[in-house]
Amino acid sequence: MSDNKYDVLTVGNAIVDIIARAEEDFLVRENITKAAMNLIDADRAEHLYAAMGPAIEASGGSAGNTAAGIASLGSKAAYFGKVSNDHLGKIFTHDIRAIGVDFDVSPLEGNPPTARSMIFVTPDGERTMNTYLGACVELGPEDVDADVVAQSQVTYFEGYLWDPPRAKDAIRLSAKIAHENNRKVAITLSDSFCVDRYRSEFLELMRSGTVDMIFANDAELKSLYETSDLNSAVSAVKSDVALAAVTLGEKGSLVVSPDETEEVAAHKIEKLEDTTGAGDLYAAGFLHGLTSGRSMADCARIGGLAAAEVIQHIGPRPQVSLKELLAQSGI
Amino acid sequence: MSDNKYDVLTVGNAIVDIIARAEEDFLVRENITKAAMNLIDADRAEHLYAAMGPAIEASGGSAGNTAAGIASLGSKAAYFGKVSNDHLGKIFTHDIRAIGVDFDVSPLEGNPPTARSMIFVTPDGERTMNTYLGACVELGPEDVDADVVAQSQVTYFEGYLWDPPRAKDAIRLSAKIAHENNRKVAITLSDSFCVDRYRSEFLELMRSGTVDMIFANDAELKSLYETSDLNSAVSAVKSDVALAAVTLGEKGSLVVSPDETEEVAAHKIEKLEDTTGAGDLYAAGFLHGLTSGRSMADCARIGGLAAAEVIQHIGPRPQVSLKELLAQSGI
Repeated sequence: MSDNKYDVLTVGNAIVDIIARAEEDFLVRENITKAAMNLIDADRAEHLYAAMGPAIEASGGSAGNTAAGIASLGSKAAYFGKVSNDHLGKIFTHDIRAIGVDFDVSPLEGNPPTARSMIFVTPDGERTMNTYLGACVELGPEDVDADVVAQSQVTYFEGYLWDPPRAKDAIRLSAKIAHENNRKVAITLSDSFCVDRYRSEFLELMRSGTVDMIFANDAELKSLYETSDLNSAVSAVKSDVALAAVTLGEKGSLVVSPDETEEVAAHKIEKLEDTTGAGDLYAAGFLHGLTSGRSMADCARIGGLAAAEVIQHIGPRPQVSLKELLAQSGI
Repeated sequence: MSDNKYDVLTVGNAIVDIIARAEEDFLVRENITKAAMNLIDADRAEHLYAAMGPAIEASGGSAGNTAAGIASLGSKAAYFGKVSNDHLGKIFTHDIRAIGVDFDVSPLEGNPPTARSMIFVTPDGERTMNTYLGACVELGPEDVDADVVAQSQVTYFEGYLWDPPRAKDAIRLSAKIAHENNRKVAITLSDSFCVDRYRSEFLELMRSGTVDMIFANDAELKSLYETSDLNSAVSAVKSDVALAAVTLGEKGSLVVSPDETEEVAAHKIEKLEDTTGAGDLYAAGFLHGLTSGRSMADCARIGGLAAAEVIQHIGPRPQVSLKELLAQSGI
């Protein structure tokens, strides 16, 4: 086994978020599926931006947010994802490096431009995403740095990577390298509609042992097993993967292994502002706990703590040191 | 007199803010004057960005923030300022139009790029700005739309406009048009170091009647009269201008006219997050009150309400409808 240079390597679509508040009827009028990640093309992106209220820009991307959270907790993280060498790409690169994540995938020269996601935050705090994948479609196996994979305790990637054409090849290669080095591989199911698009492939990843662990929210897990009953989905996942962390929003989370299901309460918050990044930061906290030898219940608690920070402000990444928050929490 | 198409026209440096949290010792190490607007060149901008933590981007610029606040309160606002036709320029233009401000100054084709200010928010909530003026140096009298000035009840501009070379000519022209149409002209003194750079010119604007009203915080007013005593500065300003609104941070504000000085308490807040935009939004609230016929004390209260909203989150512009906040406030 190589050195433990990294606790976690995350791989995902490298995206800058464009975030604005919006009313429910805006989503209806624009025919946008609420709470989901809606894929859009360049024309639709232009149309929606013209219709969007005043926004702020913040680096995002699910696995990018997770890497940022892991670094903020004091663990060592690396990231693979594809930006273009344009202004948004420079912003993405600056932000992920500035929080302490190693990110050295070479940017695309020229078009398509860096991916952006227009995120509408409704008064209930729910976020609805509209993603133009841009340069992400160019991520492929040639972007996998085998040394980084070999040196990472866990390689974690997004289900969203099944949307661009060649990223899944990068993932299969990474998983192979990871397992050759006795490392663990994890996936987040990303979004219930994403699960619907790639259900059989995700199940194959689990059943073939390509992934050792999954992250999902209740909607995604139910979509995976095409059931409306969470208990059935939880029973089913036990025979498909060694470890599943299932988030239940304000009800906390479940840690599911073939032998047992552990329930952990959500971290208390004062006011929900914006759910963007909640699942990403839960995964960050969980993986920080896992790679630092914590109990499963503590992994879930640290996940809850990190998620609680990010949903109490606009934007998908922590605004304060999660390491300090964790130290103060007594977990 | 022309129609009242606009309640307020604001004129300023069109800037996109790049905002990150930082510790006090970062400012010391980088030799940055705390709480001030520090002007920087392109090389310094590159150096500071490399040293900066993870950031978010948000449209800013003092008078731009004021225009956004006025629109959010339901008044009609227009804006003059210069961006380039680059990505940040498109962001600035989108955001100010999306909140309802008329902004039709033609963008600069090519270099210099759109202005940006790197803002460091320290744990005490204070903001420290580092501004690369970029395309702002090209704002001049040719950008003044005389009809817009003539149709605006108040033309309001930044003292910061004395930094670029030709913006002051745009201001003198606008003031002339405004007064020919029996309109009012207001200035914000912007920053105590800015006052130090242009003290005699600002006093001349006041004493010649080029401006009818000033906005200042206590540090700026004391700098204007080179005194450490606020009372002396308040006495002095009474003979120089018909109306002065002086903000005192958590102590509220003073409305000063030759005949009287009225004290208004600050609006209560839960937690100070980021003072960026506090003065700008105070001016927005005050001018909304003024152009809708409110009493001076109510103008100051509406200013305090708008400032309170913006200092309770990261970013220089309102995140919720100030019109609704005002309706709920009972002011």
